[in-house]
Formats: sequence, C-alpha cells, structure tokens
Amino acid sequence: MRRIEIYDTTLRDGAQSEDVSFSVEDKLLITKKLDDLGVHFIEGGWPGANPKDVLFFQEMRKVSLKSARLVAFGSTRKSRNKVSDDPNIQALLHAGTEIVTLFGKTWDLHVFDALGITLKKNLDIISDSVSYLKEKGIRVFYDAEHFFDGYLARPEYAVKTLETAQAAGAECLVLCDTNGGMMPWQVREILTVIRKTFRGPLGIHTHNDSEMAVANALTAVECGIEQVQGTVNGFGERCGNANLCSILPNLKLKMNINCISDEQLKHLFDVSRFVSEIANLPHNKHQAYVGEAAFAHKGGIHVHAVRKKAETYEHIVPGKVGNRQRVLISDYGGRSNLLEKAREYKINLTADHPRLDEILANLKDLEHRGFQFEGAEGSFELVMKKALGRHKRFFKLVGFRVIVEKRQESEDSLAEATIMVEVNGQVEHTAAIGSGPVNALDNALRKALEKFYPVLSDVKLLDYKVRVLSAGAGTESKVRVLIESGDGETTWGTVGVSENIIEASWQALVDSIEYKLLGRQS
Amino acid sequence: MRRIEIYDTTLRDGAQSEDVSFSVEDKLLITKKLDDLGVHFIEGGWPGANPKDVLFFQEMRKVSLKSARLVAFGSTRKSRNKVSDDPNIQALLHAGTEIVTLFGKTWDLHVFDALGITLKKNLDIISDSVSYLKEKGIRVFYDAEHFFDGYLARPEYAVKTLETAQAAGAECLVLCDTNGGMMPWQVREILTVIRKTFRGPLGIHTHNDSEMAVANALTAVECGIEQVQGTVNGFGERCGNANLCSILPNLKLKMNINCISDEQLKHLFDVSRFVSEIANLPHNKHQAYVGEAAFAHKGGIHVHAVRKKAETYEHIVPGKVGNRQRVLISDYGGRSNLLEKAREYKINLTADHPRLDEILANLKDLEHRGFQFEGAEGSFELVMKKALGRHKRFFKLVGFRVIVEKRQESEDSLAEATIMVEVNGQVEHTAAIGSGPVNALDNALRKALEKFYPVLSDVKLLDYKVRVLSAGAGTESKVRVLIESGDGETTWGTVGVSENIIEASWQALVDSIEYKLLGRQS
Repeated sequence: MRRIEIYDTTLRDGAQSEDVSFSVEDKLLITKKLDDLGVHFIEGGWPGANPKDVLFFQEMRKVSLKSARLVAFGSTRKSRNKVSDDPNIQALLHAGTEIVTLFGKTWDLHVFDALGITLKKNLDIISDSVSYLKEKGIRVFYDAEHFFDGYLARPEYAVKTLETAQAAGAECLVLCDTNGGMMPWQVREILTVIRKTFRGPLGIHTHNDSEMAVANALTAVECGIEQVQGTVNGFGERCGNANLCSILPNLKLKMNINCISDEQLKHLFDVSRFVSEIANLPHNKHQAYVGEAAFAHKGGIHVHAVRKKAETYEHIVPGKVGNRQRVLISDYGGRSNLLEKAREYKINLTADHPRLDEILANLKDLEHRGFQFEGAEGSFELVMKKALGRHKRFFKLVGFRVIVEKRQESEDSLAEATIMVEVNGQVEHTAAIGSGPVNALDNALRKALEKFYPVLSDVKLLDYKVRVLSAGAGTESKVRVLIESGDGETTWGTVGVSENIIEASWQALVDSIEYKLLGRQS
Repeated sequence: MRRIEIYDTTLRDGAQSEDVSFSVEDKLLITKKLDDLGVHFIEGGWPGANPKDVLFFQEMRKVSLKSARLVAFGSTRKSRNKVSDDPNIQALLHAGTEIVTLFGKTWDLHVFDALGITLKKNLDIISDSVSYLKEKGIRVFYDAEHFFDGYLARPEYAVKTLETAQAAGAECLVLCDTNGGMMPWQVREILTVIRKTFRGPLGIHTHNDSEMAVANALTAVECGIEQVQGTVNGFGERCGNANLCSILPNLKLKMNINCISDEQLKHLFDVSRFVSEIANLPHNKHQAYVGEAAFAHKGGIHVHAVRKKAETYEHIVPGKVGNRQRVLISDYGGRSNLLEKAREYKINLTADHPRLDEILANLKDLEHRGFQFEGAEGSFELVMKKALGRHKRFFKLVGFRVIVEKRQESEDSLAEATIMVEVNGQVEHTAAIGSGPVNALDNALRKALEKFYPVLSDVKLLDYKVRVLSAGAGTESKVRVLIESGDGETTWGTVGVSENIIEASWQALVDSIEYKLLGRQS
C-alpha cells in the first residue's frame, strides 16, 4: 500500500486567516492534538516574522511528541544579507527543530517585481540558504512559492529553482499554488512532467481561491508525489489552504493510501471541532466528512432509504471519521454514543439502564438550547451524574447581585458582586470586586465557598470563552460561555448558556466548582 | 468559443440545506436575481413534494423572465401508479413550465432496496414518465440519480437507463453524483466512456461530500458535456451542491468558456451576498471569488508585493466578479494604507498632513490594546475624525449603573440599567431592563437619547460579537466587543475593548450612536 506523508501548517499558514489568532498556549494544545491525529510534520510557525512563534518553539523544547516532527518555517535569506548574518535564517536555527521548511521564489515576475533582483541572484539565494542550514545539520524542505504560476510563465527557470534547491541539499521539493488559481488538469499536466524530472520526495501545497485546493492536492498525489500540505478545517489566508479534514479521508477511504491509522482517522471529527473551538470560530456544519450536517438527512425519500440501507445516501460510513448519521427528526444514533462516553467517564451505564432514554432526551434538549459539550466535558459528566442520582449538592445559592458602575466618562467602570450562599445550614454573605462583572462574581463565589471547601483554593480559571449564538439579534443574542479550569493536576471544561452573560457564566462557574468537589469524592 | 448552459437549483436542491427555508416571496426575489445573473435554467421547486412550490409556480405565471427558463422538478412515476394517474407527474403538468426535470434510478442497489422492483420495471417507469410529458408538449431533462455509483456497480444497466430516457425523448441527460463520493479522476474515466456513447446534451450534477463538487463538475466540462447544475453559495443538503459562485468564474476566467456575459459576472459578488441575506445566513467570507476575504491581504510580504503588482498574490482581477482587494486595516503598516482608507471614507487627508504620524501612532496603540478595526470601520472613521478635529460630542455621560441580580437558584437572573446623560445642559435620568446586562444598558442609553435625537429610533443593533482576547487569564481576560448596527439604508461596525465586558460594550455602543449622528452632519 502506497504511503503519503501529511504536513500540517495550521499553526503557520492557517493562522494567516483573517479570523484566526492563536496564543502560544493555543498552539501547544493544537500541537498535541495533531500529534495524536498522526500527522507526520507540524509546521509550528515562522520565528523570523513573529515573536510569538519564537516563544512557541522555546516552549516546544520541553515537549516530546509521540510521532510527529516539529518544523520551523521561514524565508530564504534576504538578498542584501549574507546567509550567516540573515536574522530570519538565524531565527530558524534558534527554533531548534530537526527540520526547517524554507520558501523561495520560482516565478520570474516575483524575482523582478517583488525582490527586484536578477534570476541568477535568486538561484544563489536559494542555494546559499538551503546549504547553510544543511551544514548546520538541519533537514530542509523547500517550498517553491508560486511554482505553478512560475512554471506557466517560464518553465525552464521554475525547474532550475527546484534543481538548485535539491542540489543544495533540500530533501523534499514542495510545489506551491500560492495564489490558488490552478485547475486540476493544469496540476496534472505540470506534475506529469516534473515527476519524470525529479527523483526523491515531492510535496504539494495548495490554496482554495478557485475552490480547487483539495482536488489539486489529490491530483498531485495521483501523479505520484510523496507529501501533502494542508490545514485543519482549511484555515488560511483569503479562501484558505487545502483542507486536511477532507484530504485525510479521501486518501484513506477513496484512494486506499496509507497516511494515518484507521484508529487515528476516527478522531478527525473531534480534531476538527477542537481546532474551531480553540480558534473561537463556529464549526462549519456543512464541511465534508466532519461537519455536523455531513451525514444529516432532512426527510422524505432520503431518510426512508437511508434507514433501510445507509449507503443509499451516504458515501462512507460516518464512524470512520468519528462522525455520525443524523436523522434530523428523530435521532436513533445517540445511545451507543452515550454509552461510550459513560465508559470514558468511568460511569457505570449499560444499554438496559432504565434512565438511558431520559438522559438522551435531556441532552437533546440542552443541545437544542445551545449547550455544547465538546470542550465542556466537565458539564457533560455532571449532567450524567445528576440523571443517575450520583450528584450531590455542595452549596445553595441564596442570591447574588452584580453591579457595574461608571461614574464619569473618563473613568473605567467598576464591577462589584455580592453573594449569599448556604452550606450545611450555615449562611455566608460576602462581596468582592473584579476587573469585570464575571470576574467579580467568580471572586465573590470563591471567597464564600473556600471557607467550607479549602481545596477550592487550588482551582484556577485557565480560560474563558464567549460565543454569541443567535447572530442577528443584537445585544439580545444568546451567549454560550465556556470555562476551562484547572487544579494543577488536571483541567476540565464547563459550559453555560443564557441570553444573560452573567447567568451563563454563573452556570459554568457552578459546574466547575461542583465538578472539582464531586471528583474528590469518587 | 465553446458554450456551457448553467442550470441553477438553489430554489430546489439548495433549499434542502438544513439551514435554509425559503418563503414563496424569497423564491420570487431570488428568481429575479438569477435571471439577471444570466443563468439559463432556474429549477424552481418540486411541486409534487412541496405545497409551497405549487404556489411559487402559480405566482411565476405572472412573471416574465428576461432570458432564463423556469424548470419544475419531480420524480418519475411511482411503480404502483399509471403515469396518467401519478400525482407527482400531474403536479409537474400543473406547474405550467416549458421544461421539466425528471429524476429516475440508475443504481441497482436503489432499484432493489429503495424501490423494491425489478430492473426491467425501473426502465418502464423511466420510459413511461418521460414520454408522457413529451406527449404533453413539455421539454424533458432527465436526472440520472446516483449515476456514478450505479455505473461503478453495474455499468451496462446504468447506460441502459440513459438510453431509455433518451429514446423516450429526454433532451438532456444529467449525470448525478448524488452522494458526493466521487473523485475527479473517476468522473473523468466514466465521462470519457459516456461521452463517446451519447450524442446530444449531457449535464452534470454534483454534491460536495468529498469537497470535490466543483472539481467534478468542471472535470465533466473538460470531458465535453453541455450543462452544469449547481447552487448559489453551494447551498444544499449535507455538505451542499456544486457552488455556482466558483463554477461561473472558473468557466469564464480559467477555461475561457462562454456561459454568462462579462457584465453579468460582475454581479456575482452581489448575487452571492443577496442569496445569503435572503436565506438569513452569514455570508461565508472565505468563499472562493465572492468571499469578503477572497482578496484580503493581511500583512508583511503579501501587502507589500500586492501593492506593487496585484497579480503577485491575486489569481484574478477581483472586479471581474464584483469583489475588491482589501488591505486589512490591522496591518496599516504605514502611511499609504491609511491615506487609502481616508479616501474611502471621504476624509481629506494628504501625505503631508501634520497629524498623520499622530493618527498612526494612536492606531498602533489601540491595536496593541486589543482593538481591531476589521469589521469595525465605523470606529476607525471616528478615530480619524477625532484626530482631525472633525468630531463632535452629542452627549455627556454623567453615569450609569448596571445590576444583575439572581434571587433564587431556580430563577433566571434579572438585568437592569440606570443611566444619566447630559445633552446641551439638559440632564436625562432613566432606566431600562434587558435580557442581559448589555441589552439593558443599550435599552437605557437609547431611551435617554431618543428624546434629543429621534433619528436614533431607526438604528437597530444587527449583530453583537464577543471575543476573549488574552486566553489563559480566566475571567480576568480582556474582551473585545464588535457591534454591527444598521438604519435600514446602511450598516456600520464599531468596537470596544476592556477587561470589563460592560465597559467594552459601552464603548462600542457609544461609537455606534456617534457614527450615526456624525454621518447625518457631513
């Protein structure tokens, strides 16, 4: 079985998307997920262009990956610099990765108009830059920027740049459709020529400006290349990069090509949602393979047929990518899923449990109201424990009041919360300020409860996310609040939904505390 | 120049999308837009399955289209019915269109498992149904459902169904990848055979379940077919249909094929947005060709090069599809960008203006503090006007207080805001409730100001977004609030940033109001 290597650039090219801005922490989390998914290379960033990426590569020195190789990305040297003095090249060395991807110019238009140098000088730059890193013991992949446009404009020169990079020691030559303008038959025509010319690994890096990124990447695979580059969910500048969430299942299930394992492919749906969540973007429900609607059947003929035999209207078995069939009216796929989740949480729930239907109905209702339990599995566990009578109350809210006050235009708003809780018949009434209303409420609640449960002093809120659910309703929109908490040993996510952001935050805060206190008991 | 006919099914297959539900009025509006765009066929609905569609075809009898032909869609007769008694076929006759598209079964799996009839009987059904409509003087297109899956399973039978439809009088045979599972090279292989077998028009109808719908449709065009079916924005069941917003420019600009005129193609961006608007869905900004981000450049090397020569990072001239280049404000990176933006806002700002550096420094500082002016160009304009002394105060805040109170665990939180503002020496003190704290503050501020500025009653908040900026800081995180406002004529975005969500929302609300009131004066 033929094998293809997967090169993920979500953290670098994906982060070029207008809507995406990853923190270093976000990048570390995503790196771990990508490693679990089984991609072979993870391009972590461009240390020469982005100070945040320098920090990421520093942090990554402490992390050991299971199987993926971390890659730093950067430009060939600037024309005015000696390679050993070029700050960008030096930044790549300092990133400390085993592999570096260097990009250089292929298209004469760019050599003349963007760089303003001669064609010969551009070849020198490519050669210098690649061989310098090779001498330092680094494996080099070479990204031929605008390869296809360059080839169409001046084929012999485009090939010359590849030959130069290869001669200097680049081990994989990656052909880029940087502007995303190619049609699949153009890719096929050009690749057929190039494949004959070059021994050794070739890669493909495509953009989606003509809605052809996936088709172009896989056409290149058909022509015999070895490496495919892309991003999770197709994130990327303009119209995005080639979408690995489509490429991976197409490779495995349609082309019978080895890249990640069957087991890893089953995590694709989760990885796709996870990356959307971290990027704080709504997950595209119509996305091929991993959208929530990808195997959803709306009614009539399709539902009827699909119930008799799924392949009548489903091109693959949804479970192979971790997705599932949804019949929009009545969902019978839920039980086994729920049992699986229960097992995951070590909750004893069997298929014949009398409350199973009730839990399912409750979950469906919560989802309908805007709750979402990916990234909030703490809340999910509480829902199940409540239904099974394995939940316990730790405090009772008597009431709270949150006040935000602005006394003068030039002054910042002040936030204060008062709260009254009851624990074992004892009432605690206290108050706290905060940087905003949610922070004030959080502070007041902890202050009131730590007296009874000192263990809560270990709990920190690590992240707080707000998502407006019903776009188009102005400030009356429903919001979903996701909170990530940790106690130094483990982390857990909780969720709340309301038209009132304070109420939604309250639900998530209470879940976070209950999860911690319950966990200690089991 | 070769010519391809465009068949739009936004109103039928597009409306099968989980999120789309068009009223008859919506359909009439979209039909007019599609006719202006120059598509050749508009599939209006399935009168035999949907009572709303019956009404639509009735209404359409009063409408005359410029050049498009209206088409009614429906199934071949049910196996138990005589064709003249089949309600679905009768509904097609009553629709009163010149053309009808009939779909029938190609795949033996469906004939056996979905219909439960013999292969022979299925051929009779196709033959009867097509010839009956032909006898009534109707032009018939034949949709071969699951053609590709059927061909792979039993090629000779799949071909037989086409021959049957053609013999019965179908003038165009449309090959459908109903489940969206095909790869472009499979389409090419099969089409190459079919094209040799059949004289007369062939069409292609593809779905996007493998992210290949556009590639598959255009591969079929490469193989010599005559008609392409698709939907605006790729709307459709599951992962959607082939996206005409990518197909049309690819045909015209990449393949040099005649379909709609150059002038009509310039309306593509508007049509795409219009259909999203009518469907009440957010427009996908990353969509190829017609997304707002399709020609947006974020920074560094790209912006620099694209200014020198647009084709360095743009695969087509954006104006050809009615889109435009955007240099994102966040990367104003310098003076020329700012001057360009000023021109756009009709602010007289020249390169030698004494305050130019000050404005730049101020913008950089705001961005550093978390402001972002993409999607908040209203606030951006105010920043510039303030710096140029072209800003005016419309009210002074004396103070506000927002209170969120929860009195019992089982009750929802209540939100109330009080506010005191001063306009021309007159103080207004009022209060309002809301579904949450921001909504309450918004209500109170409007209530206080509408007394002085009645024009504000036209202003509606259309969208409200919250983004947590510094992930990892728990509830102390900074938040950025983006508000989209509109007055029925135009819309504008404003932004606020603070650790306190109420304060951030306040900033954006004030900007929204000032933008509206200032606009009236200039």
